[in-house]
Formats: sequence, C-alpha cells, structure tokens
Amino acid sequence: MNAVRFHGQNDLRYEKIPVPKIRPDLHEYLGGPSLCPTTPHPITGETVPLTFGHEFSGVVEDVGEGVSDYKPGDRVAIQPIIYCGTCGACQEGVPNCCYSNGFVGLSGWGGGLAEHIVVPTTTLYHLPDNVPLEIGALIEPLAVGWHAVKISPFKKGDAVLVLGGGPIGISTILALKAKGADKIIVSEVSRKRQEFAKRFGCHYVIDPTKEDVVQRCRELCDNQGVHVSFDCAGVQVGLDAAVQATRARGTIVNIAIWEKQCSITPNMFCFKERRYMGVATYQIGDFQEVIDAIASGSMKPHDMITQRIKLNEVEERGFKSLIHDKDNQVKILVEVGGGK
Amino acid sequence: MNAVRFHGQNDLRYEKIPVPKIRPDLHEYLGGPSLCPTTPHPITGETVPLTFGHEFSGVVEDVGEGVSDYKPGDRVAIQPIIYCGTCGACQEGVPNCCYSNGFVGLSGWGGGLAEHIVVPTTTLYHLPDNVPLEIGALIEPLAVGWHAVKISPFKKGDAVLVLGGGPIGISTILALKAKGADKIIVSEVSRKRQEFAKRFGCHYVIDPTKEDVVQRCRELCDNQGVHVSFDCAGVQVGLDAAVQATRARGTIVNIAIWEKQCSITPNMFCFKERRYMGVATYQIGDFQEVIDAIASGSMKPHDMITQRIKLNEVEERGFKSLIHDKDNQVKILVEVGGGK
Ligand SMILES: [Zn+2]
Ligand SMILES: [Zn+2]
Repeated sequence: MNAVRFHGQNDLRYEKIPVPKIRPDLHEYLGGPSLCPTTPHPITGETVPLTFGHEFSGVVEDVGEGVSDYKPGDRVAIQPIIYCGTCGACQEGVPNCCYSNGFVGLSGWGGGLAEHIVVPTTTLYHLPDNVPLEIGALIEPLAVGWHAVKISPFKKGDAVLVLGGGPIGISTILALKAKGADKIIVSEVSRKRQEFAKRFGCHYVIDPTKEDVVQRCRELCDNQGVHVSFDCAGVQVGLDAAVQATRARGTIVNIAIWEKQCSITPNMFCFKERRYMGVATYQIGDFQEVIDAIASGSMKPHDMITQRIKLNEVEERGFKSLIHDKDNQVKILVEVGGGK
Repeated sequence: MNAVRFHGQNDLRYEKIPVPKIRPDLHEYLGGPSLCPTTPHPITGETVPLTFGHEFSGVVEDVGEGVSDYKPGDRVAIQPIIYCGTCGACQEGVPNCCYSNGFVGLSGWGGGLAEHIVVPTTTLYHLPDNVPLEIGALIEPLAVGWHAVKISPFKKGDAVLVLGGGPIGISTILALKAKGADKIIVSEVSRKRQEFAKRFGCHYVIDPTKEDVVQRCRELCDNQGVHVSFDCAGVQVGLDAAVQATRARGTIVNIAIWEKQCSITPNMFCFKERRYMGVATYQIGDFQEVIDAIASGSMKPHDMITQRIKLNEVEERGFKSLIHDKDNQVKILVEVGGGK
C-alpha cells in the first residue's frame, strides 16, 4: 500500500509498504510484555522509517477476533496515545504522562498517512452521523486545547489571554468558546493569524509589536489582568508578558512545545501568588467530549481546514506549505482513498 | 524610647526616637486616603530611617477610642501586613498580594525592635495562656510555612520534598507535621541545618552534594517522586532537582525569595503535567490557625529560638550572627523590656 514515511530529518518519502495484518483485539496488546522490548521505542519497539500521521480519522475495514464494539463501515476518530499501563503515571490515571509514552503515527504502529492501519480498539471513537470524516481528523488537535482548558482553573466568566493564533491557539479558543468564555484576548503578530483568531471567536486581538500586552490586558480586565493565560506560542517575550498580564492567584498554562529552557522571575509568581502549569495532549474523556461538542454545534471547527491535498502530495504541498506559507494555513487535510 | 532603626545598607542604629502616640482605633486608618500619599511607601508614606522588626509579640499598654477587643495587659502577636484595601488583589480577598503592600517593621508604622509601637487592632492576635510571649514572636515566620502548605495541593499522606533547612524550611516542616505529613524529605547541604531539620521532624535528609536528589526521591516514593516540593532555598540547581523529583501532576511551591530570574524547562512541566506556584506571606486565618496549632501542641516551635539578645545588641550579636554563624542559628530572640 502507499504511505508517507519519515526516514529522518527532512526526509519524508511517499512509498510502498506492506499492508498491515489484522490481529486478535489489540487491546490485549497494550499491557503485554511484548510491547516493552529494548529496541528503540520502549512500547512499539519500532524505529525509523515510521509512517507519519497522528491526527486522523477513518472507516473500519475489518476487525479482529473478540471485537464487538466496531464493525466494518464504522466511521471513527483515532486517539493516538500509546502508553505502558504499568508505570507510576499510568497507574495514577494520567497515561498522557506515561514514562514510556508514544503516539501512533510518530512512534510506530503505523500512522494516518497510509492507506491502511491496524490499531487497538481502545484508540477508537465513533463519529456521530452529523460529524463528517474530515472533521473527525480534527478531533486530535481540538482535544489538545480542550484538555488544556479543562484541567486549567478556567471557569465560565473568566477573562483569558491566549498567546498565539496558530493551530493550538485556535484549538484553545474553540474550547474556551464552547466552555462559555466571554472575554478571550489573543496576542498574535501575524495579521492573517489575527484574522483566524477573530473568525474562531476571540473578542480582542493585541499585536504585541504595537501594543503593550500587560497594559491592555489590565485595562480590559478590571485593572487586574486575566484569570488564566494560555501560552500557545512558546516565546520568552510572550511568556514574560503573560505572567504580568495575569492577575493575583491567576494561572499561566503552557501548551506550547518549547525547544529549550525559558526564564521566569520567581518573585513575579510569589508576590501575586500566580501559578504555572504544563499540559500534555489529552486524557480519557477528552476525545468524546470534543466529539459531543461538535455534534451539538457548540464547537464549529470546520474552517480550520484551509487546504486539501492527496497522499502523494504530502511533502511538496503539505509540509512545505506549512513551513513557507504557515500564516495562511491552519490544518491541511490529506485525503487518503475516498473519504466520506 | 530606644529603637533599632534601619538607615540604609549596612547601617542599623540603636537610638532614641519619640514614643509613638495612641490614636483613635487605627482600623479606620487602613482604607483612608491619608494612607496613600505620594511619599515613598504608597501606604505608610514613610521613608528611611525606619524602625525594624516585623516578627514580634508584645503586651498591650493602652488602647485608642473605640477599641473593645483589647485591653492593657493583653498578650498579643502582630500580623504585620499593610495593605490598601482597594486594589484588585485586596478586593479579591488576597491582601497579601496587594499592589501597594508593605510590612510593619519594614515599610513604616514602627516595628518590633523598639520599646513601644502603635498598630491597628486588625493586626493583633490574642495569645492563649499556654503560649508564651517569646513563642508569640515566632508566629509570623511560622505563618509563612503554614500558608504555603495550606494553599498548596498537599494533603495528608502525600510525600513531600523541602529544599533547604533554614528558618523557612523549618517553618514548612513544622506546618507539614501539624497537617499530617508522614514522608518529609529535606535536601540540605549544611550538616548543622540537616540536624535542625531532623529535630523538627523531617523523615529523610539528603545531602545534594553527595546524593542524587531526583533518584533518592523516586526511590523513596514508589519510583515516582514526591507529590509536592517546597523550595525554601532559591537556588537553580535545587529547583532543577525539585522539578524532576516531583511526580506527574505534582506541584513545586516556591516560598524562597529569589534575587533574580531562574530558568525552567517547559517540557518538564508539560510532559508530566507538573505545576509551579508562588506563595506570599500569609492571609487572614493563618495567624489564628498557627496559634491554635501551638496551643493544642500539634506544633512545637520552641527550639527555633537558638539565641537571646537585648535590644542594644541587635547589630552586633543579632544581624552579624545571622550572617557569620547562620548555620547555627534559626531565630534570635530580641528581648525588649521585660517580656513575659
Ligand atoms: Zn506508563
Ligand atoms: Zn491592595
């Protein structure tokens, strides 16, 4: 079958690989000792080249022995976290913090950028009739913002600051809207991304190169600042502003992946008893809640799909477009086979 | 009267100053406009020289008009926070985060290092008969640790790491013990301070120059690390260890005053969904709870007083001793007048 595989830095290849074979319900597989070999990934045991794609949906083609919840033809979204089930984090109910965690489409077990994939039923979520397959491919990134808002101290009526209007920023804005935020302030440099942020429902946009983020947030929020800030940008100057733009006892939530260290001023946290927290992907419950929010109409993510391409166009029109034209793109949908 | 006043860096003077005059209940004073002048401190309006001493107790000599809760002869501890009552933090019920806050004994209104002081009744707490005046002088530093533990996510049965066995570390250990901690690990370099930490009830001591703090904490805590870390040291290498020694979803609480910035690795917070929070002094409730804990015997702070000196010895035997002999001192009691 055809797949897009990652061979190493700047080396994505559209190539033929064997069709994966169905196995008895892979559920059993998760906790089994065969999943913790000493080869590269501690759980999948796989190493590069690996098929890419951890944000995807699909149609069930066949099921293994012992599977009753799913049947061929079912439309599903895939929750890609791979976890060991036995480490301290897994045992405390936070498999997203698993000491050996990985992702379908990043760490092995195939990926969304291929014509077929075999996954455990534990990764699957049924899509309701009114949620199209292409929207199903957005559940994963939407679950990231949903999870961050859900485990943060945000509550209905709070004022929030979102740093960055990229895909994670938009996912966060959509979750905040669905959860009743009525004062969402976005700090974003790019004019195009400012427009996206507005289209998805933020109430105020600040261009940090032209306005003082701290000052503006205080003015907009009772001279005190926001209750919660979400850092979806991962830039030092943004974090510095977010800390001071957050009121006493408020929280700065980091969703961004930072490549390296950053600096903080502990006194800024002490004098105002501010808090900082990191959030990681999503947990049990988040996927279903996002699907329900879309099905009920309280979250409308359709416009996040800014381009559609074919599987054999991933490197040329997909990744390169995200690198060179990133301000005009939120999510690029890759159609594999027919789609429905 | 005699007082120890701060005139500037390295310039403490034991000198004669006028006896302060009693006024109608100063309670009214707190919110009044006369307390927010444009002179140096936004609330007290005072500037150096200022009488020092924000950790103290005393005996009421006289009361102003309208005061009924206190009478001459009452033994009291003084909660020294000065706050404006009108800023956003004050209005949200966190006067310890007041945008103009100050301290009796640091920002004006006199201080404990003098023979007399006039303070608003809102700063006073009655000492029960079984709490000596000298223990009353420890309520303030004890309230710092108490408050930190109270607003942290610590709960009975959690394992904790305390960085530093100085006065704040000991105050934190005493609060943790009173609140039912049964696994307190202290990281401390000084042998003398390690002994203090043990005397006040910590269960394990780690010398970070000889052992791996992260490794030891994981071993001692189900291979996962502690639930909550309290940074009472304010040193980069300690913070780095505390983050990794804290389990998934755990919290690092900063009580230490850092002189400058520090660095953190956001990924260390994201991948394990760890949290960080700053705490500031204490709030309404904390002083009374500390007094109750001492009166009931669940907190025994007496041995924190490692030396006793007179008011005219503060600079020579007090501050210099804290600088040059700090590992052997926790708190130096200054006796002003008789004491009881
Ligand atoms: Zn695990
Ligand atoms: Zn205030």
